[in-house]
Amino acid sequence: MDSVILSDFAKEIKKDAKVLDLGTGTGIISILLCKKTNLKEIIGVEIQKEVYEMAKRSIQLNKLEDKFKIINEDLKNLSKKFPSNSFDAIVSNPPYKKDNTGLKNDNNTKLISRHEVMCNIDDIAKVSSYLLKTNSSLYIVHRPDRLVDIMEALKKYKLEPKNIRFIYPKINKEPNLVLIKATKCGKPFLKIERPLIVYNEDGTYTDEILKIYNKEE
Amino acid sequence: MDSVILSDFAKEIKKDAKVLDLGTGTGIISILLCKKTNLKEIIGVEIQKEVYEMAKRSIQLNKLEDKFKIINEDLKNLSKKFPSNSFDAIVSNPPYKKDNTGLKNDNNTKLISRHEVMCNIDDIAKVSSYLLKTNSSLYIVHRPDRLVDIMEALKKYKLEPKNIRFIYPKINKEPNLVLIKATKCGKPFLKIERPLIVYNEDGTYTDEILKIYNKEE
Repeated sequence: MDSVILSDFAKEIKKDAKVLDLGTGTGIISILLCKKTNLKEIIGVEIQKEVYEMAKRSIQLNKLEDKFKIINEDLKNLSKKFPSNSFDAIVSNPPYKKDNTGLKNDNNTKLISRHEVMCNIDDIAKVSSYLLKTNSSLYIVHRPDRLVDIMEALKKYKLEPKNIRFIYPKINKEPNLVLIKATKCGKPFLKIERPLIVYNEDGTYTDEILKIYNKEE
Repeated sequence: MDSVILSDFAKEIKKDAKVLDLGTGTGIISILLCKKTNLKEIIGVEIQKEVYEMAKRSIQLNKLEDKFKIINEDLKNLSKKFPSNSFDAIVSNPPYKKDNTGLKNDNNTKLISRHEVMCNIDDIAKVSSYLLKTNSSLYIVHRPDRLVDIMEALKKYKLEPKNIRFIYPKINKEPNLVLIKATKCGKPFLKIERPLIVYNEDGTYTDEILKIYNKEE
């Protein structure tokens, strides 16, 4: 769900853009973005070797080898791998949970994907600010309860929050996800978007969610 | 609308609390809070002499002279008027618009109420942090497009954002108001509340808005 929504949120990315996917996991966001935007060049970064191998297989299955490259690397080292100001957009579905909080998963792979063990929101903001061109944007999906930390990290690295959209499971429920677009050296003006509501009262998907999903097919 | 919603949002304030209303205007928030919570002591602060006089008349009309006191003062001077850590709660419906932005009103009174001419969000946070007791809260209503500034100001003065609720005019519209509760030296954990939607699709008020309004009667 979060990957599908993020790739839809970031669909304004131009097809000739050079895009980076931080913590790409099995590559789902990048694969969806390639399809949605007919994107020419996206680089995924995944720290976990076995997840990186899974992503490589997904790329082959989707015949995206020419567009979507993946590297097995710690995103904290990217400033040594790429020059500054070299990307037109960055997308990321980072780990949601603070390290040392909440229930941890016994499975180490899932632990690293979900908890801020190997990287936190500050790391994401720092490397994004370094790698993005001025006026280019970072698109992330995260948990609403982390909004204060996220805003602080973004501002610290001159990534100005420009658009925020909350995802509410139902019209009378608290949001469980938030989409954020932040622009490097952007002019301060934040737009909170209309709500994205996932389910109707009767438990069926809302029209907007159906529309987002159908676009993948 | 904003005052009614704010007084409802702040209705958890205990009736024996000592409360401050920063930039009280004609006193509507304090009057509603007195009725909602059977509050015993609230002090309103209004910088504009003529608006202050209007608030005094409202207090008399509502027979709240024993509970609701108002002072004609610049809120930036309050740290000289009251000791630190002396209030259990602070409410405020501050000017929404940055100074030197947007259309300004020819009417000077409205200008001061709506634009950050005489005080800005940093002033509100600064004085609130000084006057609130530890673990006591500031409740404000503001514009969503100012969320980044508000979060920065709150964090700067150790007011931790704890609850945020967006008010959407309709289910498919952007929010035009936001309610924020921030707690002095509060533990970092933000809860984004379920959306407050004002109108149904057919233009009638939603049940929740009717409920909030009926409570005033």
